[in-house]
Amino acid sequence: MKLASISYQGADCLALSIGKDQLVKASDAMTACFGRDAVIPMDMLALLQQGEEGMLNLARALAFAESNPERVTRFPQARVQWHAPVRNPGKICGIAMNNSASNSRKISAPEHPAFFLKPASCLVGHKEEIAIRSYYGSVHPEPELAVIIGKKMRDVPALDAMDYVAGYSVMNDITGNGMRAEDLFQYWAIYSNEEDPDKTHRVEQHLSYAARYKGTDNFGVLGPWLVTKDEISNPDDLSVECKVGGETVAQDSTRYYNYKVAELISFINQFHTLHPGDIVSCGTAFKPSENRKSIHNANFQQVAGPVSVSIEGLGTQENPVVVEEKEIGLWRLN
Amino acid sequence: MKLASISYQGADCLALSIGKDQLVKASDAMTACFGRDAVIPMDMLALLQQGEEGMLNLARALAFAESNPERVTRFPQARVQWHAPVRNPGKICGIAMNNSASNSRKISAPEHPAFFLKPASCLVGHKEEIAIRSYYGSVHPEPELAVIIGKKMRDVPALDAMDYVAGYSVMNDITGNGMRAEDLFQYWAIYSNEEDPDKTHRVEQHLSYAARYKGTDNFGVLGPWLVTKDEISNPDDLSVECKVGGETVAQDSTRYYNYKVAELISFINQFHTLHPGDIVSCGTAFKPSENRKSIHNANFQQVAGPVSVSIEGLGTQENPVVVEEKEIGLWRLN
Repeated sequence: MKLASISYQGADCLALSIGKDQLVKASDAMTACFGRDAVIPMDMLALLQQGEEGMLNLARALAFAESNPERVTRFPQARVQWHAPVRNPGKICGIAMNNSASNSRKISAPEHPAFFLKPASCLVGHKEEIAIRSYYGSVHPEPELAVIIGKKMRDVPALDAMDYVAGYSVMNDITGNGMRAEDLFQYWAIYSNEEDPDKTHRVEQHLSYAARYKGTDNFGVLGPWLVTKDEISNPDDLSVECKVGGETVAQDSTRYYNYKVAELISFINQFHTLHPGDIVSCGTAFKPSENRKSIHNANFQQVAGPVSVSIEGLGTQENPVVVEEKEIGLWRLN
Repeated sequence: MKLASISYQGADCLALSIGKDQLVKASDAMTACFGRDAVIPMDMLALLQQGEEGMLNLARALAFAESNPERVTRFPQARVQWHAPVRNPGKICGIAMNNSASNSRKISAPEHPAFFLKPASCLVGHKEEIAIRSYYGSVHPEPELAVIIGKKMRDVPALDAMDYVAGYSVMNDITGNGMRAEDLFQYWAIYSNEEDPDKTHRVEQHLSYAARYKGTDNFGVLGPWLVTKDEISNPDDLSVECKVGGETVAQDSTRYYNYKVAELISFINQFHTLHPGDIVSCGTAFKPSENRKSIHNANFQQVAGPVSVSIEGLGTQENPVVVEEKEIGLWRLN
């Protein structure tokens, strides 16, 4: 199934892909299949919180709608406004430097996945405008596979991790590498001594903070679809493509990720409980295309959109990019 | 008003401080004051989403309950289970290195606030157990003032920022500085050239990722209360104290923050939309106490709890600390 969160005729709803380029409301299919008493999830998060039963009911409703076209109303995809499939995820974990193509650029790096968080407030959907501002500095796209969690999980080993996945989506993990260069600290950290915690010692440490360069409004494009996992036989071998202004800037595959999907989810899960609707964005598939253009050439301050990201089996998202000429507001009191 | 999210007699509810060490259910006070048709917010987030009107109605209901004690049921604070006052905030922004006491340890640093995100899934409430694991490495408390947003805001200048604040709470921004030292990268970043985006150049950059060391389960203690802003005349001058195992490890004040509350919110707001219930944790108030003990001596792997954080006017949170001897699970597939 391909599920979407949309607005149609002025109302937000959960919709399902049906036939060619058409949609049906989840509520319409559910009512046609199960009658007026059907328990209809309010939105994608509510559906995911229903667990496997909710998804199975929806699959039955879709099958019913496909075989009984006179019982439901179809409408064209072109007529709707798209939102991120999960509009209000509890958290979005983004994996850093997970592409083997970046390994040669690492002078030193951990031997496990490292990750940052993006806020739900940064999300936009397919076709929505990516508005950025001149004071953000350099901003580029990062095409990524997003995994959507379907069941609450904690301490799940890699071998079992895929049982907790509801499906996949396409993420453009838009990154302000200009701001990234600004939010760096070099400082003397203090640690307690291993033998005697009453004594401390200083360690020189470089720290950087990602909330601004990864979490600014419009820095996460998710969608168009949540594609249920039964449609994707191997998430660790999907081709990924990114275009900016019609030119290809990444031609890659999830098979070049350093860590597989199950490993990423399982590693995070040794520290964080994951809940239905939580998203793990697996890292940038950024191998340059044959024309030698890369995402690093696609600074939105310099290069006009639209930007599109396609992943095999998950569809294509395409968004216009708008740069607003603007100075930062008066955030100091004096 | 002092508001809390609690469980009492097996049910979750929103409660208000009334009299000495007692509580009243928000629903009880609202019904007593406004009758059976009162619109009762489901939880703190729902209350905050009602905006100022919701808060004013609740204040009227509390005043009614105080003057009509026979019309409501009071119960002792000691009988309830506390949760984080906002259990499911849309985002938690944590400010890095905002204490002037850390300035002398900075070799280089930005000239604006830098911030990271903590997930809602890491939150626990007053009295709840802080369970950490041996494989997390060194973990210490960070006592902080938390600001809770009351109205959707974007691009609000510092001078107007306080109009958007609903209230304050106490945050223990628990930090795994062991994991912090592990999630560091030194690498060659690629940037487009300013004149010609088709050309790129390499820049050596140190990056670090905070989601693990700041966002692991139980790494955020919030509460006991959301204290409405009318009770706090100056959030930029509140004393802060942190104790571990009965010993004081921080004796500080929010007046030593580099940036004032209004500046922090306003700076974030030039990048992120803030929504009702979002939390800004203003940075660690970590000046060592007179006994020369500091939070850096309070490695939970070595020093037994409980840990408490008190902020002037906002109350005291106290939590037991439990260390589980445990190895990390099998997150690799082979």
